[in-house]
Amino acid sequence: MSSFLAVRQVRRPEATPNADDFTVVTEQLPVLGDGQVLVENVYLSVDPYMRQLMDTGEAGLEGRAIGKVAESRSAEFPVGTTVFHRNGWSTHAVVGAADLRRVDQADGVPLSAYLGVLGGTGLTAFVGLTRVARLQPGEDLFVSAAAGGVGSAAGQIARLLGARRIIGSAGSAAKVAHLHALGFDAAFNYREGPVGAQLAAAAPDGIDVYLDNVGGDHLAAAISSLRPHGRVAWSGAIAQYSSAPPAAPHNLAEVMFKTLRVEGFLVREHLDAREPFERFLVPHIQNGSVIVDETVVDGFGNVVEAFLGVLRGDNTGKMLVRL
Amino acid sequence: MSSFLAVRQVRRPEATPNADDFTVVTEQLPVLGDGQVLVENVYLSVDPYMRQLMDTGEAGLEGRAIGKVAESRSAEFPVGTTVFHRNGWSTHAVVGAADLRRVDQADGVPLSAYLGVLGGTGLTAFVGLTRVARLQPGEDLFVSAAAGGVGSAAGQIARLLGARRIIGSAGSAAKVAHLHALGFDAAFNYREGPVGAQLAAAAPDGIDVYLDNVGGDHLAAAISSLRPHGRVAWSGAIAQYSSAPPAAPHNLAEVMFKTLRVEGFLVREHLDAREPFERFLVPHIQNGSVIVDETVVDGFGNVVEAFLGVLRGDNTGKMLVRL
Repeated sequence: MSSFLAVRQVRRPEATPNADDFTVVTEQLPVLGDGQVLVENVYLSVDPYMRQLMDTGEAGLEGRAIGKVAESRSAEFPVGTTVFHRNGWSTHAVVGAADLRRVDQADGVPLSAYLGVLGGTGLTAFVGLTRVARLQPGEDLFVSAAAGGVGSAAGQIARLLGARRIIGSAGSAAKVAHLHALGFDAAFNYREGPVGAQLAAAAPDGIDVYLDNVGGDHLAAAISSLRPHGRVAWSGAIAQYSSAPPAAPHNLAEVMFKTLRVEGFLVREHLDAREPFERFLVPHIQNGSVIVDETVVDGFGNVVEAFLGVLRGDNTGKMLVRL
Repeated sequence: MSSFLAVRQVRRPEATPNADDFTVVTEQLPVLGDGQVLVENVYLSVDPYMRQLMDTGEAGLEGRAIGKVAESRSAEFPVGTTVFHRNGWSTHAVVGAADLRRVDQADGVPLSAYLGVLGGTGLTAFVGLTRVARLQPGEDLFVSAAAGGVGSAAGQIARLLGARRIIGSAGSAAKVAHLHALGFDAAFNYREGPVGAQLAAAAPDGIDVYLDNVGGDHLAAAISSLRPHGRVAWSGAIAQYSSAPPAAPHNLAEVMFKTLRVEGFLVREHLDAREPFERFLVPHIQNGSVIVDETVVDGFGNVVEAFLGVLRGDNTGKMLVRL
């Protein structure tokens, strides 16, 4: 093998990306330098946050991947090692040891989970709940985009953290049913009526924490329902980036009157939480109390379509591509 | 003496209160019960937060006061003791020991300071900077309504806490000059141009902390100028309550993208900070590094006008009435 396939961004999208913004190229494999390995990718991650990276051009197609070392000039990562890297959407990648992380797959845990509920997606939910919102046992939680990767992880993790009532919103009846199957106490379809009224009906006594994935109407509804000292954890990695930022909530002054806290965060600033998070979550995956909730698309040729799909919300759980 | 004067609220104001919303009544002094004292008030506090209390009716004229015990049936508070209480706008008050606090006036500190920079006003600034925003040495601060009681205290306290650049906004050229006299590094008149442009000019490298007293344009400007990990401490006790809440900032999504934190607080939930705050600040008043910044109005008959004045922003520093 002397060449591989990679997706390249060919232009900056105006708003919602489409297939013409990308092209697939054939690249020649370079000779490995000292400390480098050749990775044959097995899973590629497609994530909403990549939409924002497309606006900066050069970093456009950085993306998370898991694969096996096929050739190695690094003693640390011999042939056959399972590794995580961020080299993006390609069938193979030449990566230096400093940019690799070994994946120690636990018994009974699917490899894909290390890009999803055990990867940056699940870590976003965990950091948002524990470090940012500081969810306490017995508190009530609302999650928007709850059927997506971060949301479905958040609902399950919040249960493990002792949340009392867990409420999710999603964009279809099928997704609402999916939320019930994941153990959410209440769920509603935000397309079926005003978010504020639906949330108030689902949480008549209010909520303590809102994990925000969408802003706009959802944020306004959450602010209305939050009890004094409530917290909003608002992740920069999981919003909808294709359109202009949503309108600011009309009731923001309640943040002052009710002594609320609204805090943005980026999971990449909390990577030190990854190992304790993995130790915390793996046993719950192994005993079946946490579902590895994924939508897996097969074939490298479908990676762009999978990405466009995650921006449309086609997926339930984490969206992945299997090569 | 068998009677005293008190201000009563006679109706709920529609928006901005006026003199007709109040009346002065003559009340008979009751016989003191066990544990009660008669306080002859010396200073009355008029504060913006009282505007909000007027909407709830019954609590309408609760207010902070300092006076001397004139008669006592409490061993804890003998005649002549200087005390703080919250019985509101009256010449005298009958107060139970449980609702009194002794004021131990330090050498060189004016009594009025215990209702201002050492009272709830200064404590609001201190709690907002230290507990909510967690201002660090070397950080840059923006304060709105900076010539008012909380703002003028905040600018001076922030200097003691090691802030680097301290920027204030106010509503007149005279107030801007006052801010320079108080040691603010930069100050601007928000009526002279867009707040965002004026703040950006005053803080070309951005800010780390915003102590919000007003919301609206000021909050939007601060969000634009805040650096990543910046904080907004937004006090429910110091906003302008006479009008509808200001419009939400158009750029709220920057809270997410820049990992900012916007947090409301109420000083009454932080009264445990009062003693350490007093110990911290008194030496700086004694050595002249903190100015006791006050506007003092004389005469009980002027208390309503003083209150209406503080809502209009007539004062620089803390607004007080001396009897």
